[in-house]
Amino acid sequence: MTGMKKTTEKHLMVFSGRAHPALAEQVTELLGTELVPTSAYEFANSEIYVRYEESVRGSDAFVIQSHTAPINEWIMEHLIMVDALKRASAKRITVVMPFWGYSRQDKKHRGREPISARLIADLFKTAGADRIISVDLHADQLQGYFDGPVDHLMALPVLADYIKEKYGDQELAVVSPDAGRIKVAERWSARLGGVPLAFIHKTRDITRPNETVANRVVGEVAGKICVLTDDIIDTGGTVVKAAEALMKEGAAGVIIAATHALLSEPAVDRLKNSPAVEIIVTDTLPVPEEKQFDKLTTLSIAPMLSQAIREVFEDGSVTKMFDGHA
Amino acid sequence: MTGMKKTTEKHLMVFSGRAHPALAEQVTELLGTELVPTSAYEFANSEIYVRYEESVRGSDAFVIQSHTAPINEWIMEHLIMVDALKRASAKRITVVMPFWGYSRQDKKHRGREPISARLIADLFKTAGADRIISVDLHADQLQGYFDGPVDHLMALPVLADYIKEKYGDQELAVVSPDAGRIKVAERWSARLGGVPLAFIHKTRDITRPNETVANRVVGEVAGKICVLTDDIIDTGGTVVKAAEALMKEGAAGVIIAATHALLSEPAVDRLKNSPAVEIIVTDTLPVPEEKQFDKLTTLSIAPMLSQAIREVFEDGSVTKMFDGHA
Amino acid sequence: MTGMKKTTEKHLMVFSGRAHPALAEQVTELLGTELVPTSAYEFANSEIYVRYEESVRGSDAFVIQSHTAPINEWIMEHLIMVDALKRASAKRITVVMPFWGYSRQDKKHRGREPISARLIADLFKTAGADRIISVDLHADQLQGYFDGPVDHLMALPVLADYIKEKYGDQELAVVSPDAGRIKVAERWSARLGGVPLAFIHKTRDITRPNETVANRVVGEVAGKICVLTDDIIDTGGTVVKAAEALMKEGAAGVIIAATHALLSEPAVDRLKNSPAVEIIVTDTLPVPEEKQFDKLTTLSIAPMLSQAIREVFEDGSVTKMFDGHA
Amino acid sequence: MTGMKKTTEKHLMVFSGRAHPALAEQVTELLGTELVPTSAYEFANSEIYVRYEESVRGSDAFVIQSHTAPINEWIMEHLIMVDALKRASAKRITVVMPFWGYSRQDKKHRGREPISARLIADLFKTAGADRIISVDLHADQLQGYFDGPVDHLMALPVLADYIKEKYGDQELAVVSPDAGRIKVAERWSARLGGVPLAFIHKTRDITRPNETVANRVVGEVAGKICVLTDDIIDTGGTVVKAAEALMKEGAAGVIIAATHALLSEPAVDRLKNSPAVEIIVTDTLPVPEEKQFDKLTTLSIAPMLSQAIREVFEDGSVTKMFDGHA
Amino acid sequence: MTGMKKTTEKHLMVFSGRAHPALAEQVTELLGTELVPTSAYEFANSEIYVRYEESVRGSDAFVIQSHTAPINEWIMEHLIMVDALKRASAKRITVVMPFWGYSRQDKKHRGREPISARLIADLFKTAGADRIISVDLHADQLQGYFDGPVDHLMALPVLADYIKEKYGDQELAVVSPDAGRIKVAERWSARLGGVPLAFIHKTRDITRPNETVANRVVGEVAGKICVLTDDIIDTGGTVVKAAEALMKEGAAGVIIAATHALLSEPAVDRLKNSPAVEIIVTDTLPVPEEKQFDKLTTLSIAPMLSQAIREVFEDGSVTKMFDGHA
Amino acid sequence: MTGMKKTTEKHLMVFSGRAHPALAEQVTELLGTELVPTSAYEFANSEIYVRYEESVRGSDAFVIQSHTAPINEWIMEHLIMVDALKRASAKRITVVMPFWGYSRQDKKHRGREPISARLIADLFKTAGADRIISVDLHADQLQGYFDGPVDHLMALPVLADYIKEKYGDQELAVVSPDAGRIKVAERWSARLGGVPLAFIHKTRDITRPNETVANRVVGEVAGKICVLTDDIIDTGGTVVKAAEALMKEGAAGVIIAATHALLSEPAVDRLKNSPAVEIIVTDTLPVPEEKQFDKLTTLSIAPMLSQAIREVFEDGSVTKMFDGHA
Repeated sequence: MTGMKKTTEKHLMVFSGRAHPALAEQVTELLGTELVPTSAYEFANSEIYVRYEESVRGSDAFVIQSHTAPINEWIMEHLIMVDALKRASAKRITVVMPFWGYSRQDKKHRGREPISARLIADLFKTAGADRIISVDLHADQLQGYFDGPVDHLMALPVLADYIKEKYGDQELAVVSPDAGRIKVAERWSARLGGVPLAFIHKTRDITRPNETVANRVVGEVAGKICVLTDDIIDTGGTVVKAAEALMKEGAAGVIIAATHALLSEPAVDRLKNSPAVEIIVTDTLPVPEEKQFDKLTTLSIAPMLSQAIREVFEDGSVTKMFDGHA
Repeated sequence: MTGMKKTTEKHLMVFSGRAHPALAEQVTELLGTELVPTSAYEFANSEIYVRYEESVRGSDAFVIQSHTAPINEWIMEHLIMVDALKRASAKRITVVMPFWGYSRQDKKHRGREPISARLIADLFKTAGADRIISVDLHADQLQGYFDGPVDHLMALPVLADYIKEKYGDQELAVVSPDAGRIKVAERWSARLGGVPLAFIHKTRDITRPNETVANRVVGEVAGKICVLTDDIIDTGGTVVKAAEALMKEGAAGVIIAATHALLSEPAVDRLKNSPAVEIIVTDTLPVPEEKQFDKLTTLSIAPMLSQAIREVFEDGSVTKMFDGHA
Repeated sequence: MTGMKKTTEKHLMVFSGRAHPALAEQVTELLGTELVPTSAYEFANSEIYVRYEESVRGSDAFVIQSHTAPINEWIMEHLIMVDALKRASAKRITVVMPFWGYSRQDKKHRGREPISARLIADLFKTAGADRIISVDLHADQLQGYFDGPVDHLMALPVLADYIKEKYGDQELAVVSPDAGRIKVAERWSARLGGVPLAFIHKTRDITRPNETVANRVVGEVAGKICVLTDDIIDTGGTVVKAAEALMKEGAAGVIIAATHALLSEPAVDRLKNSPAVEIIVTDTLPVPEEKQFDKLTTLSIAPMLSQAIREVFEDGSVTKMFDGHA
Repeated sequence: MTGMKKTTEKHLMVFSGRAHPALAEQVTELLGTELVPTSAYEFANSEIYVRYEESVRGSDAFVIQSHTAPINEWIMEHLIMVDALKRASAKRITVVMPFWGYSRQDKKHRGREPISARLIADLFKTAGADRIISVDLHADQLQGYFDGPVDHLMALPVLADYIKEKYGDQELAVVSPDAGRIKVAERWSARLGGVPLAFIHKTRDITRPNETVANRVVGEVAGKICVLTDDIIDTGGTVVKAAEALMKEGAAGVIIAATHALLSEPAVDRLKNSPAVEIIVTDTLPVPEEKQFDKLTTLSIAPMLSQAIREVFEDGSVTKMFDGHA
Repeated sequence: MTGMKKTTEKHLMVFSGRAHPALAEQVTELLGTELVPTSAYEFANSEIYVRYEESVRGSDAFVIQSHTAPINEWIMEHLIMVDALKRASAKRITVVMPFWGYSRQDKKHRGREPISARLIADLFKTAGADRIISVDLHADQLQGYFDGPVDHLMALPVLADYIKEKYGDQELAVVSPDAGRIKVAERWSARLGGVPLAFIHKTRDITRPNETVANRVVGEVAGKICVLTDDIIDTGGTVVKAAEALMKEGAAGVIIAATHALLSEPAVDRLKNSPAVEIIVTDTLPVPEEKQFDKLTTLSIAPMLSQAIREVFEDGSVTKMFDGHA
Repeated sequence: MTGMKKTTEKHLMVFSGRAHPALAEQVTELLGTELVPTSAYEFANSEIYVRYEESVRGSDAFVIQSHTAPINEWIMEHLIMVDALKRASAKRITVVMPFWGYSRQDKKHRGREPISARLIADLFKTAGADRIISVDLHADQLQGYFDGPVDHLMALPVLADYIKEKYGDQELAVVSPDAGRIKVAERWSARLGGVPLAFIHKTRDITRPNETVANRVVGEVAGKICVLTDDIIDTGGTVVKAAEALMKEGAAGVIIAATHALLSEPAVDRLKNSPAVEIIVTDTLPVPEEKQFDKLTTLSIAPMLSQAIREVFEDGSVTKMFDGHA
């Protein structure tokens, strides 16, 4: 037969944008490798320049970027990195976005709005992305926005196991800060060994819908350490009000647990001054020095990301990481 | 200047598949036109054949099909109709699917599942669809599944106004059959003039998550006529159990209102035997003779569809049909 | 060089829809493997649900489904299976459709018809198919309908070798049931060692085109065992009339051989009562118990499919399976 | 409402490549307009340059090119013309190719061949074509190769009416030069008022398939004027041999009628020396001076093309031009 | 004929992002209309929200945004605006980007770089753009990066006519700041009535390539008012050094003229302190108060943009605006 | 785990069109393999037929074709070869076009022109190309025209090293024939060890733009052997005039060096009669016998192409072949 043959090797390479290098470094350390050396900077007019310092030809490339503020900056850098990989002949490009930017704009609330969460998926597809790895999507439906495989990781084991270890000997309850997220709270309850559930009914007394909003607690929380869980803490308004309501109902204490620590102004002040004894988040987004405070605990998502990358590289199962959920 | 000029005319044409011709006929009647004559039948081996009996060249085509059982049959017919329009030079093709087939498979609950709701969107795009009109999507995020405009209509005004007219002089409450749909119930409450809300907590006593499921009513319903609202009635299990729970809590009566009457076995029996005094649905899906029963009221969605088609044809606003929602 | 390396392995996995599991099982048995365990069922409203019970990440996936009646059901299941594979990160997806559904609607006979055969190709592309394996396409041009490789297998060796073995010591003739398929008959003749050809002229006496249709035999068939060959037996009208004409011309006997046994009503009765002594088909489509009858012989296409799958998996030549035809 | 409004006008513009300007000029004359002035020439290294001398913005553009030898030259010019129209903002681009280049390479006869007829369709799509108008496709399936509307015109009325007028008072027969085209011959027979059919069986005596090829006449032709019909005359071998066979069978005369006059070497000599009394073709391809000869009659396809263009421009029916075929 | 007809109207609507509203307002004022009222703001985490306050269905939409710093912010807003228009059924979407962001990254200078200028084109295509209007592209080849029509406007008439009017009675010379842009300078020379050309040779004494860079003036400039022309002034280094070189060569004065005033740090200081008597730019990018200084003259590009929009809307010729260049 | 596993092998296969087989043969010889046997010829009507004589399934295919006159012929053959590879299941298809046809039509000089260089990129994408290898693109921006990786090779080392070896002991200067290509000349100067630069100013005395064109030499060339460098020699007018101008300025001799030897009429005569002592080109395009002459030296580009193919096949770096340029 004409031609030449050669056994094929796969070559894993991990790349990081500039939004949150510490996370990417942890991921590569856990994988036992290093980030590919990359030049990236802004030109005088704020355009971004990126170049890889090593050949990436034929690589199985994973490009990590946290979509944190200034979010448009980092998304654009992420897109440019994917474009550079495509043009440099990477074999497969997996976009790792621990937090999917614009994920909350996933529908038209009113006419003539964009559906920016879908737009983001399409932009990455156009730039050259073959697949996406992300953590705790705001709505599960976002998996369907990308025309290709999406590995949807869940921070629940990381957060819940920490709480179990630290507070497991106390009487716990899991509390959802709004009615729409009770299903997630149920999974928390199961992971914590079957503790009771409660949730906050953020409404104008349910029987008088036109009156002012109140936070009514549904479920028994008196005397319990309440674990308030959410996917995102943005300005912190919702969870802090929920925590206050829980205390008013006689909770023994409140712990707040969330995956994505956006911590936009004035979240830090609110959380500091809240009755919560501990706020536990992951580092899907960077928490800069100035946003850190005593009660804030940041758990690393890096082990989960590195394991998922390894499974993807080795054609293993990501689903099995979560007992039947992917 | 070389060439020939001619003033442009738009030409609205409405087509119907065979799943629910009565609805399509009402729509065209309200528009003041008729369905385009169409041949459609199955070959001996169950393949579907379609042909239009008139030129459709340059038309602004609206193709109506209800995705009812046998749903794959009717979806395939719908796709074939779109293909025939594309190849016959229709100028723009709007797919009217009052109920979006497979809309509940809108995410991967577990690994290695399809996302069939997105697949449906992509299949219609491939066949040649330029836009979609649909009613009460199971999740708003489905709008983002189609790569083009989606007009998302809401049956709420049709259903609620009927109830207001018939039961408006009694003491009403709006009840959501599960915690995840309270937002829709709030819109119902507003439309009915600010009546109280309640909902069913379908859970294993919220404080003991591992015990058997019960339907707990949250909110005051005693002495009230409860309007139980949902998007879909499939086998009817959820709403009927909810109705029973409401009666046990002292409700003065229960009315069930839902947009999409799938009424799969054994919905009819369950509903007949339920404590509900009236079950109100729309005809987004056909309700055949044998599924009709005394307590069932079917309201027509045709006026809403015909108005939306008219607005789309005339470049009017569909949003304004719903006071700022589209 | 930064990163990690690993030798690449290919992983063949075979999947089957529910239309014709026996065929898929034979194929995997011949390959020395098993079908990937798969859950598939209908929901109450007839929507199909599919899930694979094992990780399929990185696999070279072959998805077998027979497009038999109810054909739209099985095509939709086939599409959903491909979607699930795409989203679960199969590396390459080969759609195996022994009979290409809607293959006879491969052109517009009149204005405003669909070209459903092309639509089917596009729908599978959209769902995620990378390539197609099919048997005896109704028109060779269908290969060009799919934007990617199509392996076009021919059942001729299977059918002809059976006949050669069983009837080879008798005086044979190959007969085409219509003038348009003489080329195929020529290949049959060659395979059977150069036996004479004949064909049926299904026409209004060729010299009087306006009179009623008759089946005129062209070629010498008197005293010969006639092998009537076609690609499809649907309702059986054509071949049975041809068989009768052959007997009238003095044929010593008639054997009918066809690849795709649609056997739509009233094919079974017609064939049973026909003068043919044996009807030989393959199992590209399932022949259920109630359609089987004494004179019907079903040969397995599984060896050919399994060989083709093996060649595709191992980058061998499918063409060589057919002496220079692919 | 914000903005400005303006009544829309359509603007038909017709463009011609350099392969066969006479045909395009006739088309525009019949439409009552003129070809858009266009610069086109080759650079020294044989690259083609094209530019339109008038604004084409917003036009409904029809680009006519005959795919004649040197065919790759003219196809590339055709593609470049479409690209220039797309970039100059034509609103809709219809490719008029009276003969579809490479239409005979519409399947893989053997492994590892291209399907060039599909490739041509895709190249035009990529360049910017919205639709195609073509005449007498070699296989009807080609309509399905283009992802958009294809208007398939038939030269039959042009050719047959000429013959009817000139030879209608004689005893005619329609003869197909090979078994695969009898269906077309049947349409001819009907158009000529029901004259008898015959066809040439180009085979090694049908009963002895391994012997040399002969042309056997099937049907009664003795004493009749035989109209030999085909879609293409390339080198003329087939039809001339057929004509000879007909004369040998006692035909009173032979007329050859074909749509596409490729007339490649040595067609002209063969036809001149053939027993045919007249060879009638259309001008879908140019017949240069040096290929013309006494017995050759070239009928204009321009009226049919201009009518089709007009119907497309005015959203009329092309189907009706052919009594229910499009 | 079935259906309803209606004369078609076009509806021009102009939209503006928040980067440079003054320009967009001038454009609409010149068109005699107004900007469509639009809500746009950032969420706490810097995600952008956009919504149009009027129906845009069926509109011929022009979306103006200046790609100025922070450029990624404004590009993302521009993309989101296009997405919202697509989903709200605008009929045609023209992206007006007076300066094409990332246009200088139009090739790989070294391996593993992105081609961001192409990426930008693709992102807008994906979001829904049908066409682009831009001014003075950094390289003409960028027109080919977008898969659709690009109207390439030139600021030359605006800038040159101002100079002609103000300095036309003096002895002028046109000077290109580097050898690569002499062609543009030639167009300037012609527009100014045939004044002499010169250019700066930015090199290490051409005969000693390894020595330090110097700015050598080629051409006679002594005693002349030199018009230094460039497409972009970013940090100002190049033009200011060129101006100094010209003065050293005895120029009577220097005027700097450029289309795009990026004026990144420290451009303003450099220009203020340069020997140039006047710096003339256009407002394709906003020049904020703090960057304005005495010698800086900003000419409006709005008349040119509004004329181009009008021509596009009315299917007129943009080419004619530039005497045969588009 | 279900299924079968197998270690993956890559299989390099090299294919050649008929435009310049000698180059392709050298490339395969250097790779230590052979061209895949291929049938290719024209049909009577000038349509091209191609078929590979060996299985190409799963191959890493490189298809070499020189875009020389008749260029449309060879481009179409190139496209057809890619289509055949796609349909025969090649795994990856790299188009090797040493000279990118139509590369000079890379922008609209005036309105209503095509951008043929982009069209070529799109046509190859459509046919099935995954990547492109080309040499010395007319504009670097062409890399951005293809939606995928483009390896841009440079002939500079081949040409310059030959000159260094042969003329290195003499006093050299590098001369660019026009101002726009000085950057390339600088790379030449560096490669030759820092020799002086000059260039030809092809203008109407720069200070009198309306007068006749003259070739003014900028830089010191008297007494030096001048190396005139360009990317393309088409009709030879530019370089020959430049050579004459250099001699007039006292050059000791002129050597012309260019990558692409189009040598269209009357290049050969012009070059023969020019003062140049040697004209050095590469064989990216074939130089037929009748165009060869004493002073013409043709260096082989095959070593560079074969090295690039090897690097692409083995996932090595092409960039490193050029010290940081790719």
